[in-house]
Amino acid sequence: MVEMRAVDILREVFELHGFAGVQTRALEPLTELSRKGEITKEVYVVRRLHAEADAQDELGLHFDLTVPFARYVLDNAGHLNFPFRRYQIQPAWRGERPQEGRYREFYQADIDIVGQDRLDFHHDGEVVLVMLEACARLHQELGIPPVMLRLNNRKLMQGFYTALAVADPLAAIQVVDKLAKIGPQAVAEILGEQGIDQARVAKILDFAAIQTREDDFGDLVAAFDISNDLFDQGVDEVRRLFAALKSRFPDNVMIDCQIARGLDYYTGSVFELELQGREALGTICAGGRYDSLASDGKRTYPGVGISFGITRVFAPLIAQGRLVASRAVPSAVLVAVDSDDSRDQADEVACALRARGIACEVSPDAARYGKQIRFADRRGIPFVWFGGLKGQVKDIRSGDQSEAEADRWSPPAADLRPVIRQAEESSL
Amino acid sequence: MVEMRAVDILREVFELHGFAGVQTRALEPLTELSRKGEITKEVYVVRRLHAEADAQDELGLHFDLTVPFARYVLDNAGHLNFPFRRYQIQPAWRGERPQEGRYREFYQADIDIVGQDRLDFHHDGEVVLVMLEACARLHQELGIPPVMLRLNNRKLMQGFYTALAVADPLAAIQVVDKLAKIGPQAVAEILGEQGIDQARVAKILDFAAIQTREDDFGDLVAAFDISNDLFDQGVDEVRRLFAALKSRFPDNVMIDCQIARGLDYYTGSVFELELQGREALGTICAGGRYDSLASDGKRTYPGVGISFGITRVFAPLIAQGRLVASRAVPSAVLVAVDSDDSRDQADEVACALRARGIACEVSPDAARYGKQIRFADRRGIPFVWFGGLKGQVKDIRSGDQSEAEADRWSPPAADLRPVIRQAEESSL
Repeated sequence: MVEMRAVDILREVFELHGFAGVQTRALEPLTELSRKGEITKEVYVVRRLHAEADAQDELGLHFDLTVPFARYVLDNAGHLNFPFRRYQIQPAWRGERPQEGRYREFYQADIDIVGQDRLDFHHDGEVVLVMLEACARLHQELGIPPVMLRLNNRKLMQGFYTALAVADPLAAIQVVDKLAKIGPQAVAEILGEQGIDQARVAKILDFAAIQTREDDFGDLVAAFDISNDLFDQGVDEVRRLFAALKSRFPDNVMIDCQIARGLDYYTGSVFELELQGREALGTICAGGRYDSLASDGKRTYPGVGISFGITRVFAPLIAQGRLVASRAVPSAVLVAVDSDDSRDQADEVACALRARGIACEVSPDAARYGKQIRFADRRGIPFVWFGGLKGQVKDIRSGDQSEAEADRWSPPAADLRPVIRQAEESSL
Repeated sequence: MVEMRAVDILREVFELHGFAGVQTRALEPLTELSRKGEITKEVYVVRRLHAEADAQDELGLHFDLTVPFARYVLDNAGHLNFPFRRYQIQPAWRGERPQEGRYREFYQADIDIVGQDRLDFHHDGEVVLVMLEACARLHQELGIPPVMLRLNNRKLMQGFYTALAVADPLAAIQVVDKLAKIGPQAVAEILGEQGIDQARVAKILDFAAIQTREDDFGDLVAAFDISNDLFDQGVDEVRRLFAALKSRFPDNVMIDCQIARGLDYYTGSVFELELQGREALGTICAGGRYDSLASDGKRTYPGVGISFGITRVFAPLIAQGRLVASRAVPSAVLVAVDSDDSRDQADEVACALRARGIACEVSPDAARYGKQIRFADRRGIPFVWFGGLKGQVKDIRSGDQSEAEADRWSPPAADLRPVIRQAEESSL
């Protein structure tokens, strides 16, 4: 119920912003899945149990929702209107050893905006704002901690490394991306092995250390006295994007020059989100700008997208009992049964309640009333109905019982559906 | 959108009846999946791309939602309250050659009620009534054809075959199950090969030919002059269930004594549904009573369930263009942009509309108004907003344009969300 409520909130926010829901098949040709070479080793390959022994493996389970979406865009380009905005909420699979925070099956919620041949920069801000709005709703309604978005830009990084005459900027970026994991000393060593001298390594580490939530980014980068087209464009994009995000979400955004995202298809903005105060959960949401993930040779489909890790966020909170549903079933009412002969009467009451949107179930047997009330109590069902259409309804929490008509009575709004709440003793 | 609306309707009906939503992982141990021997050949086996060559295959994709649910009940029996009512809407996979009506990935919507050691018979009627109500909603709101439910009972069949002293009743039942597919002559031949003499084969075929929508079932079976405990119990169950269903859905239910369901775990009621007038689509929904699918040796978990084939029903209707969404995107409004400098003003309008639940998107660029209107038209977006919070809104279908305030204006209710409707020239 917790996850379903989260999915409902995400879907509602995405649709309010005009994103159309798309689902793609779980199985993709391995040729599609291997586009991002690095990840291939974690793919689950799929074959028929009774396939011929020498049959070639051709299908695998998708390991994210971006690669299938790129395939979808190319397959359907002739039918889509660009810029095309879609959301996609589905499981993905990775053939990993399951462990804390690593799942073999996990749900993701992705939004992307894809253009044909061009896509204006303001869409970078748009997808991030939509996701920050979704996170704010999850914070308000389900009590997950507020998020912190870390923003960087591949153009900025590549421009910087080019200005330093680093031979292989992409390789260096992938090392710097590991800063948080392996620390500056280990990063310095590997950069040294890549033939970068100590002075430049020091500059790279200084630059990667830029973090700010203020409007001083221009000053911070000016101190490095670097200029080339790519770098200047990166600085400009970071500043504009940061300003747009900060005006709406001042407590949830920062610039962090060591964010790179490991995958090499990003070409501009990159973002990572974590939960404030629960950074140990890791990155719960990430994305960026990609100019050439999808291309059919004649046309390219540049895009920008961001992916929310539903399982990553909610599986630990649910497992630790920090987020709970107010009851285990949708039913707001249990309709009691007097005797086996009066089940029809109970069914009639249930029909009348359901016709007005009140979820209910009829007692499975005509046990003593005390036993029927315990049946409701064990499931968290707050109300028990006795008698026919003109009957009595009991709030089993307070014990209050009163006359009621099944065509008119409603539970208080707060009891109509299960409510998701934080466990009382816990702070998320 | 059509499928998502169908899923929303199914979910709403199931929750109104107190069924809790459960999803199970896509991958199950092969040992679980092979419980129903017959189906094993269609299972997709899953392994890591870089697994050792001699690694044993251990996991497969589930091929229905019943087997994973049985595993789930056994795994969680200590935490569940029985009778336990769950719905489950997920894809399932079969390693088949894709063809008309056969899919490798397909969505199902299942409901089951499972008891511990016992489950009263009235739940057989309950799951069917819930599904018939869901089908009625899909008929009213999406225009799928009305359904016809065919009802039979395994006790009735087994009692009948036992009375005829058929050596292997289960084998005979599985042959009779193929009547609709291979015809009475072929069935008679196979039954003959099983050592059943011509007189009894004739009786079996006569009995299997019983079909009725009237209250004459008692007379029809009495003509066969058979009685034993199992048979009498079967007759009683069919009569009671048929009466309960017919009182609510007189035009949608019949008794059909050749329905058996191929799978051998059914032990009582069995049901199959098809779409009236589109019988060629085949069985779109099926289920029955199973007394021993799940058992942990000490306790058994008898259940009754029914499964709706979402893909089976909707994929052809969508592919043939018979069911369409009124627009391709959720947006009811496109907020036009005057110039690149006034994008903020357009964003402000969009925020105000979304705050009141009106889905909208902002024009991707400040093109000529005519071009922006075409942008909306191509996506089926009915309204275009010009100017700021106090602006003008144009219904691009009628051309009507009027003053409007973004904090107060709403589209007509019929335009708020995309509507699913039948293509005008088609009759489903």
